Amino acid sequence: MQRSLNKELTGKAGENVCIDGWVDVRRDHGKLIFLDIRDRSGIIQVVVTPKAPGALDAAKDVRAQWVVRIEGAVKERPEAMRGEGPLGSVEVVAEKLTVVSKAAELPFEVDTEVNLDTHLDHLPLTLRSRRSRDIFTMQASILDTYRRSLRGQDFTEFAAPVLVGGDAEGGAAAFKVDYYYDKTAFLATSPQFYKQIMVGPFERAFTVAKIFRAEKSATTRHLSEATCIDFEMGFIDNEREPMRVLEQCIRDVVEHVTREHADIFERFNTDVPALRAEIPILTLKDALSTLGKAEAPDMEPEDERAICEWAKTEKGSDFVFITRYPTKKRAFYTYEDPSEAPYSRGFDLLFRGLEINSGAQRIHDHDALVARMEERGLDPKKFSYYLQAFKFGMPPHGGSSTGLERFTARMLNIPNVKEATAFPRDMNRIDNRLAE
Amino acid sequence: MQRSLNKELTGKAGENVCIDGWVDVRRDHGKLIFLDIRDRSGIIQVVVTPKAPGALDAAKDVRAQWVVRIEGAVKERPEAMRGEGPLGSVEVVAEKLTVVSKAAELPFEVDTEVNLDTHLDHLPLTLRSRRSRDIFTMQASILDTYRRSLRGQDFTEFAAPVLVGGDAEGGAAAFKVDYYYDKTAFLATSPQFYKQIMVGPFERAFTVAKIFRAEKSATTRHLSEATCIDFEMGFIDNEREPMRVLEQCIRDVVEHVTREHADIFERFNTDVPALRAEIPILTLKDALSTLGKAEAPDMEPEDERAICEWAKTEKGSDFVFITRYPTKKRAFYTYEDPSEAPYSRGFDLLFRGLEINSGAQRIHDHDALVARMEERGLDPKKFSYYLQAFKFGMPPHGGSSTGLERFTARMLNIPNVKEATAFPRDMNRIDNRLAE
Repeated sequence: MQRSLNKELTGKAGENVCIDGWVDVRRDHGKLIFLDIRDRSGIIQVVVTPKAPGALDAAKDVRAQWVVRIEGAVKERPEAMRGEGPLGSVEVVAEKLTVVSKAAELPFEVDTEVNLDTHLDHLPLTLRSRRSRDIFTMQASILDTYRRSLRGQDFTEFAAPVLVGGDAEGGAAAFKVDYYYDKTAFLATSPQFYKQIMVGPFERAFTVAKIFRAEKSATTRHLSEATCIDFEMGFIDNEREPMRVLEQCIRDVVEHVTREHADIFERFNTDVPALRAEIPILTLKDALSTLGKAEAPDMEPEDERAICEWAKTEKGSDFVFITRYPTKKRAFYTYEDPSEAPYSRGFDLLFRGLEINSGAQRIHDHDALVARMEERGLDPKKFSYYLQAFKFGMPPHGGSSTGLERFTARMLNIPNVKEATAFPRDMNRIDNRLAE
Repeated sequence: MQRSLNKELTGKAGENVCIDGWVDVRRDHGKLIFLDIRDRSGIIQVVVTPKAPGALDAAKDVRAQWVVRIEGAVKERPEAMRGEGPLGSVEVVAEKLTVVSKAAELPFEVDTEVNLDTHLDHLPLTLRSRRSRDIFTMQASILDTYRRSLRGQDFTEFAAPVLVGGDAEGGAAAFKVDYYYDKTAFLATSPQFYKQIMVGPFERAFTVAKIFRAEKSATTRHLSEATCIDFEMGFIDNEREPMRVLEQCIRDVVEHVTREHADIFERFNTDVPALRAEIPILTLKDALSTLGKAEAPDMEPEDERAICEWAKTEKGSDFVFITRYPTKKRAFYTYEDPSEAPYSRGFDLLFRGLEINSGAQRIHDHDALVARMEERGLDPKKFSYYLQAFKFGMPPHGGSSTGLERFTARMLNIPNVKEATAFPRDMNRIDNRLAE
């Protein structure tokens, strides 16, 4: 018999079907055994009764995470006994149960709350939990919608390299790679230079890239390997244009997840993000002054949380833009208009207390860029490849970079960004803990 | 005046407009100067006449790749003088020309054919060529359509890691990374293990991942960093199911590029790929026998080319599947049905002479997988993390991996895969040549 997906059973009461899946939960009532069977479409209850003695015998051995094939009849569940969700209205009365794959005894129940290290030690198992499936379903939706929004705004996708020749930007610690001929290469800390180069051919370009930081930090916000959604666009007047493109992406994502994932927000006891007609924009100075603080070159994490609370309370927005950071606190390629010195045209987007995006208008003039490098003690010769883009005609341009894991984590109020990363890497772990 | 895109001018004859872009070509006719202005939407001809002496003076200095802003009037071109493409029907008569960014003298004209090394030495410039813009427009379309096809077939996207703990699969040389605490990590040679793990939560999962090979080879087919589109699916009977999913992706891609990129195929003097109702499937043995060759454990590159020619001539297909390779020639996790020994359930997809995809049904039984590792001299202890997926219940599953750069290269009959890679890395180059 051909396999049906669980979600296809809702209209099939009375029919004989065959389903495949994992045993999510097993409840043994002695004469009856109930199995919740999970497939990619959802979870359905299977009842194994003494009327199918072979199936009942098999069901006695079956445990959680075993892979089984069930043949049986679809039955409507009585109104009073209906389960949660659309699949709760029907069940399958088993006639035959075939074990496809056994599972070893579980170290803990998959849907139990365990501490983060235990969770990460067992990802091949714990990623099967309802919570993890929700997180990565949400992440896939965010990524897909964000990309679709950029394409809709005329951006062309490209693949930025992971292997780079120099620890060019300085600052962020870069991982070293043994390249050919005893040369050292590095893992990219950002696709910045490449997306700027791609402004040349496409004017508007984006990439979904892995970035790497060899920082010895074990905060709830940092990863050694992260995914960023980076865009860059030419022919802008100032930083407001990339901010508007970003705002449209955010708006499209929020609209999509609001429509598609109400159930996930409910399971996470989280509201869909509040987003008004316009995301509020504050200069750094105004943001700090709003918090009763003196002007400072940057915000502390607690300031970011406080200004987000303010934006939520006063402006009804879970998002807030902060602009006009001092140029000296931003990356060397950040544009500063002489009339606005010492402030740059950089911006950050905060979401529920955390910076999820950073962007700017960039320097587009070759000589100004070289001068800025020298000001910062960087050797322009090391940037000769990148500088070709500027040597051969570059328009005013800007863009931004969103951290996918951070965006996902704040979307669902997940405290640690590692839980919003399928296979997180940090100073203590690559799959297994390093100490092991 | 607000900027118009070039493509928006076709309906605007008689209107005054402002356009921004790069000078693609400049033709000086003395009294008249013609500038082809390129923006993200296309190329339009601008005529600078003595009626606008300021613009004409400015246009005398302007050279290719300068970034300019032009204000002027849109004019229909006489029927006999219409240029190529939809934009050829109108031109702009300049009233004002503003230089936004100058470009240094070019080492060669952007659209000249140069040798591959020269092309790669100057990517920030040469990526702006018509040819490169076509290649990466095509690549973005392939990637987007392939992903959309997988989502439409119920696959969930996830981010596979680049940093991995071991050179686990052996065989392909892996790059070494200095990780924390003097530990060595490696760059992933494949997202294989992670996509198999993701079958547990999602049953059908895919990733667009970077893979790395530290091989000292400088062929036209190899890259040290490549992009793969990898999917994996549970609950299959045999390798035919992932082959069908892949075929659907290919079909969707071919349909999309046929519809959207007729102009690119024309510029590359290439036909859209021929794809009949079903992609032909040959066992390795039959493929070799078709070529008049004795059975062998694998195909040579010239066999791949020859069997593709056969498939094109005899079956009208630019694609051909080869199945039933000997198990010993395939990755250790490849499934072999006892009744089919010594042949595996692996397959390759060839496209116009080149393998662009490799896939298989995988071993899903924990003990069989451990036994296979031992048979191959691999230490199962080093795979303990991955093996959890099998320990905790894994259905029969399989999938495949497509090389995005190879697919793009064969689509447009580009001889070297490096030209279909935005920023290719190989043993001799990371942006700059290593010798430099």
